[in-house]
Order: sequence, then structure tokens, then C-alpha cells
Amino acid sequence: MNELLIKQKLESFLIEDIGTSDLSVENIFPEDKHAHAIFHAKADGVIAGLHIINTTYQLLDSQINVTLHKKDGEEVVNGETIAEVTGPVQSILTGERVILNLLQRMSGIATITHEAVQRLRQPEIRICDTRKTTPGLRIFEKYAVTCGGGFNHRFGLYDGVMIKDNHIAFAGSIEKAVQHVRHKLGPMVKIEVETESISDVNDAVSAGADIIMFDNQTPETVTKWNSLVPDNILTEASGNITLENIATYRNTGVDLISLGYLTHSAVALDISLGGI
Amino acid sequence: MNELLIKQKLESFLIEDIGTSDLSVENIFPEDKHAHAIFHAKADGVIAGLHIINTTYQLLDSQINVTLHKKDGEEVVNGETIAEVTGPVQSILTGERVILNLLQRMSGIATITHEAVQRLRQPEIRICDTRKTTPGLRIFEKYAVTCGGGFNHRFGLYDGVMIKDNHIAFAGSIEKAVQHVRHKLGPMVKIEVETESISDVNDAVSAGADIIMFDNQTPETVTKWNSLVPDNILTEASGNITLENIATYRNTGVDLISLGYLTHSAVALDISLGGI
Amino acid sequence: MNELLIKQKLESFLIEDIGTSDLSVENIFPEDKHAHAIFHAKADGVIAGLHIINTTYQLLDSQINVTLHKKDGEEVVNGETIAEVTGPVQSILTGERVILNLLQRMSGIATITHEAVQRLRQPEIRICDTRKTTPGLRIFEKYAVTCGGGFNHRFGLYDGVMIKDNHIAFAGSIEKAVQHVRHKLGPMVKIEVETESISDVNDAVSAGADIIMFDNQTPETVTKWNSLVPDNILTEASGNITLENIATYRNTGVDLISLGYLTHSAVALDISLGGI
Amino acid sequence: MNELLIKQKLESFLIEDIGTSDLSVENIFPEDKHAHAIFHAKADGVIAGLHIINTTYQLLDSQINVTLHKKDGEEVVNGETIAEVTGPVQSILTGERVILNLLQRMSGIATITHEAVQRLRQPEIRICDTRKTTPGLRIFEKYAVTCGGGFNHRFGLYDGVMIKDNHIAFAGSIEKAVQHVRHKLGPMVKIEVETESISDVNDAVSAGADIIMFDNQTPETVTKWNSLVPDNILTEASGNITLENIATYRNTGVDLISLGYLTHSAVALDISLGGI
Amino acid sequence: MNELLIKQKLESFLIEDIGTSDLSVENIFPEDKHAHAIFHAKADGVIAGLHIINTTYQLLDSQINVTLHKKDGEEVVNGETIAEVTGPVQSILTGERVILNLLQRMSGIATITHEAVQRLRQPEIRICDTRKTTPGLRIFEKYAVTCGGGFNHRFGLYDGVMIKDNHIAFAGSIEKAVQHVRHKLGPMVKIEVETESISDVNDAVSAGADIIMFDNQTPETVTKWNSLVPDNILTEASGNITLENIATYRNTGVDLISLGYLTHSAVALDISLGGI
Amino acid sequence: MNELLIKQKLESFLIEDIGTSDLSVENIFPEDKHAHAIFHAKADGVIAGLHIINTTYQLLDSQINVTLHKKDGEEVVNGETIAEVTGPVQSILTGERVILNLLQRMSGIATITHEAVQRLRQPEIRICDTRKTTPGLRIFEKYAVTCGGGFNHRFGLYDGVMIKDNHIAFAGSIEKAVQHVRHKLGPMVKIEVETESISDVNDAVSAGADIIMFDNQTPETVTKWNSLVPDNILTEASGNITLENIATYRNTGVDLISLGYLTHSAVALDISLGGI
Repeated sequence: MNELLIKQKLESFLIEDIGTSDLSVENIFPEDKHAHAIFHAKADGVIAGLHIINTTYQLLDSQINVTLHKKDGEEVVNGETIAEVTGPVQSILTGERVILNLLQRMSGIATITHEAVQRLRQPEIRICDTRKTTPGLRIFEKYAVTCGGGFNHRFGLYDGVMIKDNHIAFAGSIEKAVQHVRHKLGPMVKIEVETESISDVNDAVSAGADIIMFDNQTPETVTKWNSLVPDNILTEASGNITLENIATYRNTGVDLISLGYLTHSAVALDISLGGI
Repeated sequence: MNELLIKQKLESFLIEDIGTSDLSVENIFPEDKHAHAIFHAKADGVIAGLHIINTTYQLLDSQINVTLHKKDGEEVVNGETIAEVTGPVQSILTGERVILNLLQRMSGIATITHEAVQRLRQPEIRICDTRKTTPGLRIFEKYAVTCGGGFNHRFGLYDGVMIKDNHIAFAGSIEKAVQHVRHKLGPMVKIEVETESISDVNDAVSAGADIIMFDNQTPETVTKWNSLVPDNILTEASGNITLENIATYRNTGVDLISLGYLTHSAVALDISLGGI
Repeated sequence: MNELLIKQKLESFLIEDIGTSDLSVENIFPEDKHAHAIFHAKADGVIAGLHIINTTYQLLDSQINVTLHKKDGEEVVNGETIAEVTGPVQSILTGERVILNLLQRMSGIATITHEAVQRLRQPEIRICDTRKTTPGLRIFEKYAVTCGGGFNHRFGLYDGVMIKDNHIAFAGSIEKAVQHVRHKLGPMVKIEVETESISDVNDAVSAGADIIMFDNQTPETVTKWNSLVPDNILTEASGNITLENIATYRNTGVDLISLGYLTHSAVALDISLGGI
Repeated sequence: MNELLIKQKLESFLIEDIGTSDLSVENIFPEDKHAHAIFHAKADGVIAGLHIINTTYQLLDSQINVTLHKKDGEEVVNGETIAEVTGPVQSILTGERVILNLLQRMSGIATITHEAVQRLRQPEIRICDTRKTTPGLRIFEKYAVTCGGGFNHRFGLYDGVMIKDNHIAFAGSIEKAVQHVRHKLGPMVKIEVETESISDVNDAVSAGADIIMFDNQTPETVTKWNSLVPDNILTEASGNITLENIATYRNTGVDLISLGYLTHSAVALDISLGGI
Repeated sequence: MNELLIKQKLESFLIEDIGTSDLSVENIFPEDKHAHAIFHAKADGVIAGLHIINTTYQLLDSQINVTLHKKDGEEVVNGETIAEVTGPVQSILTGERVILNLLQRMSGIATITHEAVQRLRQPEIRICDTRKTTPGLRIFEKYAVTCGGGFNHRFGLYDGVMIKDNHIAFAGSIEKAVQHVRHKLGPMVKIEVETESISDVNDAVSAGADIIMFDNQTPETVTKWNSLVPDNILTEASGNITLENIATYRNTGVDLISLGYLTHSAVALDISLGGI
Repeated sequence: MNELLIKQKLESFLIEDIGTSDLSVENIFPEDKHAHAIFHAKADGVIAGLHIINTTYQLLDSQINVTLHKKDGEEVVNGETIAEVTGPVQSILTGERVILNLLQRMSGIATITHEAVQRLRQPEIRICDTRKTTPGLRIFEKYAVTCGGGFNHRFGLYDGVMIKDNHIAFAGSIEKAVQHVRHKLGPMVKIEVETESISDVNDAVSAGADIIMFDNQTPETVTKWNSLVPDNILTEASGNITLENIATYRNTGVDLISLGYLTHSAVALDISLGGI
């Protein structure tokens, strides 16, 4: 992750929460009172975003020291210590909520991604995220997916082309749509085509798509369509795949499964700050 | 909501997604191609954030017209039309994902809040949110809570005081902590005290707290403690209250129940853009 | 004060003054020339904003050391040393004007607030500021008021409700206006009602206002109206109260007196940087 | 004034005041309620910054119409209408305080500047401002000075050189300081030298200063020193000149008198919004 | 191009040039004086960035109308009219320099790119840009390259992987470096490998690079190395290729030639604004 | 140069290039791998902007150490070491391109300016830049001109007045235009007049211009017109003066020659980072 961007975002998150001042902390604790505190897990899961703790605290107060007991991507169990913090108690408490809100969300995403990977039990198929991320947090959430063992699909509209049904309808055919775009694109950009029928799949192969997505299909259909695609083109299953049915996509032969709910419906992993 | 702030945030969300350009849309559709499209619900729930659609599209393209078919706070059922959009197809598609990501999240929060209100079935007790919101989205998420029938607790560290166990331990007693803070605070700021025992409750009453929170207590305890507090002080139950057990807090007599999961664990309400 | 916000503002103030470069200093002094300089008072008053000196200089140059000889809220007399600075002369001089402009204004506000407190000679009545602050400087000016012994009224339109005559006219009555707002507001927000007659005061009491303001009334009227309000509701005198007549409001029984001129008409306290 | 800069600043001022939302106005008035309101003077003075009204309201709401009854630089008397506003009452009230805070401050500066010009009664001598302005507001305050009949000295450290005593001490002599700077400066930048003795004045003349300032001198001294300076070099009196003694500097022959108090100690001109 | 980003950048460019105000224009022309003016070419070349004219002027003044006589990518000859502008003369002149500075630079880049394409005379080989762009202007300069008939290589460090000699040295071999990166990357990102010998080329082929670059090689070597690479891998010649020798790379069989000087050494195409 | 502004700009340049992350470097090198690298010249020229190296790297990583072997304004020859860098290899490589893009452009400008100074061979005539700079980079480019031995003309529209033909036509005469502007301007701002005939020159002299520019004239004409201007008014030759013909303007007697191509058409000086 680009730390310059991370710092800018963390600074704005802190200002959102603190506003003009932390009325509680500033009016109770003296500036020179120091403390020791512990971030610990209150549920089992996979942790992500640990360096957020230090980066956030450095923005608030250079006197704070953070010691990490875990690494991003590691599993934690309820009660485990994740990190220790020492320094001025005002700053430790003022930064607490922003850190927890972000760390819990990132760890929630890593945990659900890890769960998807575990249930699929076939590492040759890569679990991917989508653009269905929380506005403003994409850089954090996409990173959290990798901590859970997943992979990043395109980051935005700028670093990959996805040709969908309305594009195809307008262009007249998959071939025309792909050619049209390829003609203008630079050499580093891949083109993916969404398909909804066998003829779509065959057209996408002829058109030279880099990736072919099978949209909203059963494992049986995915297996069949996948067999029509040569090895040098990646295939992706997407749509209505959940933690419950992901295992049924094992052995379909696709290279990728993308899951919007990794980011749009992850729930926070419970983490708290205690010991002060 | 402060529209100037909303616009600044939406602009940054659009830039996060579009980056340098929307490679797919710019390379397929001509600038002057217009279309008509429909936002519709793909699940049942409560809608929130509808004016995001128009504000976002105005940032992208003043030629887009939006007609809303619903109001914030209304229930929608799977398949219902939420809004119609007409204008340049490039802009309609380029803005689609940011709008959906935000609208789905806000509606997910309104839906779960509404569910909590329904299950509690006692309007005298107000369901409140917390500061456990997604960093950067607090203004949107707190608004969504009100669309679901909930109320906003303090917005940040700057507009209300919450005296917690570590504050009390440092000050020596609840009375000292409250007096200390009251002595410095302006007249418009309320002071809430977290309590964990009957003696805490009694102390908070004597100290003149504006609101007393019963932290992590059963309905029975909440009922008992609530009876110790005079009417002019608000009472709040908080901690480990879920959709499953919220109804058990009916008739405890508290004024407020605050729920972190309204915001930290809401899942997106499925909404999509179709018809192009 | 939220230091992250302070730093952002100080950085923009420095850029406003320095622009592309400090033509005088950069073209006269070598970068490695160090100096010792003294901030001293050139008038009697109350000092406010001293940590601005260090925060500003750290933005310009980490080699500068600042030693404070006074604390915020302390009285200074003409000629007294306020702070000493050592470090590169270029940076000391480049930052001088921004620091003085801000420190002088904040100290001017603290001084006039202190004067109001002194003249009132009744600490049970709190001298409060208003929203009549210099645009962009509210966080500094409200802090300066507290240094002078005053208290902060609401910080903005977001952290307190003030029901005025036009609100009441539209709603139909004070009771309706208060009920209407209370029905939507979260539990942490207080409601203040402006009153202009005895019947207004009685209505505001019945409506359950948290604070009742007596707008533009003589000390006699204020005393009478105040006697109509129960103890658990705060009362405030406001409008046409000046340094000259504030003592006449002693013993009116109100809890608060708010004064716009603390911020909109404070004059700078003379401070200068010398000794280089 | 650069309108792009003005808009950026006004937007930040509005966000400072409104924060997350205008709790009073949003919860009382419906969005579609329109009103007519009047800005009028509540004291005599010179008005400055009138287009702030329209620019601010356009940021909030494109439906607001503003009609100005005065021009910047015109005198107003207590009770006079300055501007009329029609449009949604929510937006009219939400923007009121920011507009008044800025307009009152700018008009206060124009009024005191006008007073200085009136008392001096010698238009050949230009009344100038200084860099002693409110941080963040320099562009507004320097403009207000011109509305009162004054002139702008340099805007910042970047558009003019001022050689002061510590510069001279370091360089060894006025001549060396001026030569040193002139040798590096571009041709569009003027050099002013502060002088504190007759020999300083003579040195500054020999050194070829563009402007020579007589620092903290009586009218008699100023007259004498001014006679030593050839016509093609501008002269300036500065330091300890007040509204009370400015008339004594008439006929001293200087080209400029600069006054810090025009900006650092102007008090707000009372203006209010009524009629809603 | 993402218009939101373009507008933000143009606004900052205008503020860089205008600063606090346009002293010349504001003090000479009245606000209501309108004019008609013409942008015309003063040299032959290819035009790029025409919509900058309208976007910039809309930021300054909504009363300005712009009529384009050319399209991006078209050739212009000395003297030809490029665009006509009508509106307030103040705004037309104030925006002139920023528009010209940007338009001239973009057109200079389009012109040199077009020249490279013409000299190569083999459209199957795509002329590409690099990351050697002017800081802050990448989005404009990469767009200008496409106007000249070129193609965009990766936009930054985030949307493509380039494995260079020091990466390979650290990883131990091309194969290890590619595998290492591929193992972590998402499916939409291409990997390019820089090669400096035949064995590098063979290694890159085995490693499954998406693109293989031949760094700093003669046309003869490029031809030979290219024959070693299967068709499904793109090949690129780069380094020391100039307008003078680009034709010698015709028929080398590569897919891409990348040229840093398109952006780092383009000179402005002379364009001026006249007719006022 | 104002370092606060420089840092803000460098931060935005780094974010432009790095985006969400440096995919190549982050996926190949471990965070704790350190390296030593060398910036060296790959062509002869004059170096400018060396402290950019350290400022940029400090933004990325406080562990990087930079040792400069040259000073701004010094000549370098092909192969010479300019600076050495040690620290984490990830950060060294991630910052490389932004530093080189800026350093090469600044050094290209210093080199061409130095060349102009050398060819003119008359130091009494100052070579000046113009406002024809790259948008967003003016502060860097104007500084680079001084490193090459040139001088800065006005920085923008705010720090100097230039009266051109269309201004004069509107005002009616040069005298009216100058008087009109002088009447409103502060005392620190100089007025320059563009002249295109002998009568223009005479008018500008009478009008009391501070600088008179001879626009687009031959050396002979410049010499003649210059003789008409008294010594206390600066003269400037501008328009169609190139490296090829600049020597012909020797002995024309003007004080200044301004050259747009110093900034709008400078080509990058080749510099590279090696040794890793």
C-alpha cells in the first residue's frame, strides 16, 4: 500500500472523529500522563491492517510506541493480544476508535476471505474481490482481501477493461466490442468479457479476450463452458456464489472466482483496546 | 446533511474509482449516446441515501436527469423501481458503481435499524447508533440510521462527553470526573457516564450526569438500575444487545438503546442499475 | 484543540504569507546562520495560544527550539518575555509574522474575556462566546475565550440547537418548535430557545427547553424572567451587553452571559519578536 | 480578487460552521419553504465585500437570488438596506452567520480605513495596510482596505523586499544589504529599507532603495528625513501612527503611511439579516 | 480523461498564475466589457487538449462561450484558427496563459508523437509513451500521446509490473522474479520483463512474461531476439530510439516501441490568442 | 523556495506515480533490504533542484540518507556522480522516477539558461524567464532559471503589471492605461509597458512606466529605442530571441532579455539512478 495515501486518509479519519477536540480526554487526563494498553481479539479470525495502529498513532503523537504481536494474515483467537501500545494516555484514547473501526473492518474482510479460501479447498482457483468496496476505503479493503488469501481484481475503472452486456449490445457483437477497445488501449491493459451463453463464450474466445467471465452460472455450466476456452485465456466464475455454495465450484476448472460479498457484506471482527 | 461536505466526499469517491479514466466506457460509447436506466431493489429493505444519486451524477454530468420513485426511509421490495435516470450513457455507467456501493451500504444500515426498531416494538425507547462507523462515512451512516427510525448518538469526540471506567479510575470517582469535566465544558455539551454497578449508578446520579449508560447488563439489571435514576436524567442500555435479544429489553424503562452493529456489521442491501 | 487540524491551518497560513519564497530572508541570510530571539509582550493582557509558536516553527524547520516562559491564560505585562526561540535565523524570521498575527489575536480575545470576567465579578455566571468568530479561526478563537476564563457556547450549527423567532413563527409556537426538533434530534444535543417576552419564557419552560435565552433585555427584566425558570433549566442573557454594562447583570441569577464582541471586536494584544 | 480562491475559502468557512448539518434549520423548516430577507446596516460605516453574499449563497443553493442595494466602498447609515435575498429559507439561514462574520469584518476594516483617510485629509499621501492581517483572510482584508480608500502594501513575503535592522546588521551596512538582494532579485521586485536615523536614510538613498520607510518617527523627523530623499524614491511613515495622531503627519511630504491597526484591530461593523 | 481530476488540476493551475488577483486586467477592464478572441496556430503540428479551453474558462466564468474549429488529433498549419471565444474580456485574458501553456505542451507532444508514427511508417508497431512525464501532468501528456497516434504504456507503478535488472539480480533469475510477482498479483495485471541478452529473452519466454522488452538494442538484434518470442507474448524495443533512427526499427517485428522523449523532451507547439 | 509548498507538490507527484502501490517493488524486494545507489549525469549540463532528492525521499522513508556531490548551478559532465543514496531499496526505487522527471526538467532549464547567458556574454543584461512555464511547476522552473544564471520576471498575474496592446487600445493611450492602473495599485508593484513603435516608447516614458519592453524588434531597433529611455527606467527586449540570435542583442543597451523557451521548450538533461 502507498503509505502517503494511507497517511492522508488516516488523517482525515481522525479529523472526522476528533473534530475540534476530544472533549472527554482533554478535560480528564493531563498531557503528561502515560499508559500501557493492549489491542486484543474478542473473536476468532484473520487479522489485517496492523500497521494502521502505528501509522495512526504517529500522526497523533510521536511519543507512542507500538509493538505488534501478530502479522497481517495470521489467525487470531478470542482473547489473544494483537499489539501493545505505550505512550501518553490522551493520544492512546483519542486514536482508539478510528484504529478499531478500520482494523475491525479490514480483519472482518480478511476473515471472510480466508473462510472462502478454506471452503473452496482448491488453491489453483484464485478467490478475487470486486469493485463493490466501501467508498474511500478501497485501498484498505483490497489489501485486506490479500491478507485473507484472496487476490485483487482490477482496482478501478482505470486499470482493466470489463466488457458487459450493454457494451456488447451497443457495439453489435463481442468481437466488435473487443476489437474496438483493443484498437485504442495501451499494451498493458487486459480485457475481460462477461458471457451469458455458450455462443458468448465462443465469441469471446475468437475475439481474443484476456479473461472470460461466466456470469451467474451453476457449477455444471461453468465446467462445461470452461472446457471451451483455451488455456492461455483466464476464466472466471462470478455471481451468486456464496460461502455456502462455493465448494460446489471446486473442480470447475476456472482460474478465478470473484465475490462481491468479501467487501460489501463483511462484518467487523471484534477487537478491543484494554488494559488502561 | 451538509451538502458541501457530501459533494467533496462523493467527488473523492468518484476519483477513487475512475482514476485517470473509465477505460471501458470511454472506449466503447460515443459521448453523445444517451440512455434511460433504472435503479431497482433486488431485495426487501428500507432505502436510504437516494439524493446521492442526483448529487453524484451532477458532479459527473449536468445533462443527467434523475427521477426518484421512493423517499428515504421508505420500505422497498425486491424488484421495485427506486429511481430512473436519463442522460449520456457514458456518465450513467461511470457513476454507477460509486452510487450503488454507497446506496447499498446506507440502505443496509437503514434496513437493520428498522429491523431493530420493529423487534423492540416500543417507540419510547430510542434505538441509537454509536461511533463504530466506517471511517470517512460517518455522515452518511448516521443519516442512514435516522432513515431506519433510529437516532444519532454523539457524532464524534467533539460534541458530547462520555466518561468511561479508565476516566473514572484516573479521576478517583465518578463525582470527581464529572465535576472536573463540567467545570471546563461549555453549557451546550452533555455528559454521559458509563456505569457497571449499582454504586456507579448512584454516583452518576449524585454527580449530575445528563445521561447514564448501563454497560453490558441483562434486561433485569437494566430495569432495576433504571428505577434508581430520576426522570430528568436519560438512561441508556448498551453492550451485547443484538437483533436476537433486543426485544427482551422492552419495558426496561430506559430511554435509549445503542447498538454498534447498526453500522459496523450491516450488510449491503442489494440494489442494481439496469435497463440500459 | 485537535492538533491535526491546527497543523493543517497553520500550514495554510504560512503558505498564504510566504507564497513562492521569502524574498528578503532567503536573499540575505545564509541557511546555516543561527540566532536567538525573544517573543515579548508590548502591552498588558492575558496570553493565549503559546503552543502555536512551536507548532508553527516545527512545520518550517525541525532545528528550531522553543522555550515557553508563560502558560496560556496567564497575565503578562508590557516588556515581559513570553518565549525564547533558537535556531536558523531564516526560519525564525519567515515564521514570525504568522505566529504574531495569530498569537496577538488570540491574546486579544483572552484579554477582553478576562476583562469581562473581572468586571462581572460573579463566577457563578459563565461568560460565553458566540458563533460571531473570524471565519476559519473558530477553533483558535474559542480556545482563546477559555484562556481568558470564558466558556464555549456551541461550536457551530451541528452541535446544539438554537430556536429563534423565525423558527417559532414558522412552527406556530415555541412548544411546537421544540417538540418538532426534539422528535428528530439525538439524545446528546441540547435545545436552547430565544425568548423576547414573559409568555415566551413560560412557553419555553413548558416546552422543556434545555437552555432559555433572554434576548436583549435589561438587568431588571433578566432578573424577573430568570425567576420564572426552574433550576434544572439553564438561563442565558444575551444582546447589547458590553464591558461597560456587564457589571449591571451581576445578581440577575442567570447561568450564562454570551458576548459576541469577545471575538468579533477584540483588538490584537501587542506582542513582538526581538533580540535577533 | 481571484474568485477561485474566494470560493475555496468560503466553502471551508461554511463547512467550519455547518459541520455535519445545521440541526436547527434542517429540523424545523421544510426544504421547499421560500423566504425573502434583508441585510441591513445597524451602524454607520463603509461597506466592503458585498459580492461575498452571492458567492456564498451560490455555494449553498443555486435557487437563491441576491439583489445588492449598495456597492463596495459606499457609506451606509444605521438602518439602511444593503442587500435583499430570496430563496429557500433553509439555505438563507444556514449561510447567514458566515456571510455576516465576513462582511462585518471587511466593512469594519473599510470603515476604519475610510476614517484614517478622512482624518489625514491629504490624498497625495496614500494610507497603506501591512501584513498584520488575520491568518487565512489576507485576500479579503487587503481588498477591504482598498474599499475604504487605502492601498495595498506587499501581499506577502514573496512580492516585495523589506530590509530591516537585523538584515542590515547581518549584511554589515544598508548598501551591502541592498546590493546583495538586488543582485539576486528579478526586475519586477521593489526593495524597501527601514530606517531609524538620518545616516540610515542617506545610506538607503545611496544604495538605491525603491522605497524608504521612516520607522517610528515624529511628524517633525519624518518631514526632515523626507527632504533628504530624491523624488524618484518613495517614502513611507510607519509605526505608532493612530487615528488620533494621523492628522499630524499631514504635510510631512511622505508618499505613504502604513497602519497595522487597519487590519489587526478593526472591530466589526454591525450588520444583520432580518425580515424572515 | 476523468473530468473531475482535470477540473481539480486546472483550478490549481489557475490559482498558481492568478494568485490573489490579476492586477493588470482587473485594473484596466470593467467587468462588463465583452470581447471576441481567437486561438490560432503559429506553427504546423498536431493539436491536442482542445477541451481544456472550455473547461478552464468555465471555471473562471460561466458567461464565456467557446467554439472549437479543430478536433484533438487533427493537423493544424501556421495561421489556422483553432477555437473562438466570446465573453467578458477580463476572464478571457486572465485564463489565457494557463490555457496556452497547457495546450502548447500537449500539442507539442502530439506533434512529436505523430512525427514518430510518420517516420516509422508501420502501423502494426505501436509507438508508446513511458513514465518519463512532467510531474503532475501525466494525465494530460498521456492523452496527448494518443492524439498523436501513440499508445499509453502503464500509467504508473500501480497498473503494470516492469521487472528490471536489479529486480532480477535480487530474485536470482528472471524465472524466480516473474514467479514471485505472479504469485501475489491479481489476474488483471500484466508483467513485462526487460532483457539485455538472448538468454534473458529465452528466460523471459519460459517464465511466461506478458511482454518482453529488448533494452537498448540495434534493429538487427531486435529482429533476431524478436524471432525467439512466441506470438502470444508482446515484444517491445526501447532505449536510444530517436526520431532520427526510428525508421531503422521498421520490420524488426516488435509489437511496441517506447520513447521517453515524446514527453520529457517535447517542445511547445506555438499557439496564440489574438483578435481582442 | 517555500519548502512547505514544495513538499505538498512532491507528495502529489509521488501519489500520481505510485497510485495504490508500487506493484513491482513491493512484490519483489523485502522491506528490510537496503541498498546504495548513485544519481549520475548522462550528459553535460547545469544541475538544478538537487534538494528535491532528499525532500522526496524523506516523504517516502525517513531511513534514506542522501549525500550531494554537486550544488545547484554547478556544471556537470557526462558520467559524473551527482548524489549518493543509501537506505531501503523499496523506497529508493519507488521514488526514483519522480525525482528524475523533476531533476531532469529543472536541469534542462538551468542548462539552456546557462547556454543563453554564455552566448550573450554580457552580464549587465539579465536573461529573464516568462510566465510560459509548465502548469503546476512554476516554482521549480523559475528556480531552475536562477540556477542557470537567469533572473525571474514576475511570478504570476499578482506580482507585477504588464500593459499590453489590447489594454492600451481599451484605455485609449499608454498614458491613460498607466495612470489608470497606477491610481489603484499599491506602492510595491511595478508597471511594465509593451511597446511596438517609437511613439509607444516615448509615451511609455512620459507615462512613467517602471519597465519598457520592446516587443519583437531587431537588435538595431532595440538599440535605437533603448537610447530614448532615461536610465531610471529599465528596458527589456522580448520576442523571437533564440539561442541562435541572442548574441546579436549584445550591446543593445537593454537591461533585460526575456525568453519564453527557457521554460516552454527546454528538453530534459539526461540523469539516471544506478548502482543498485
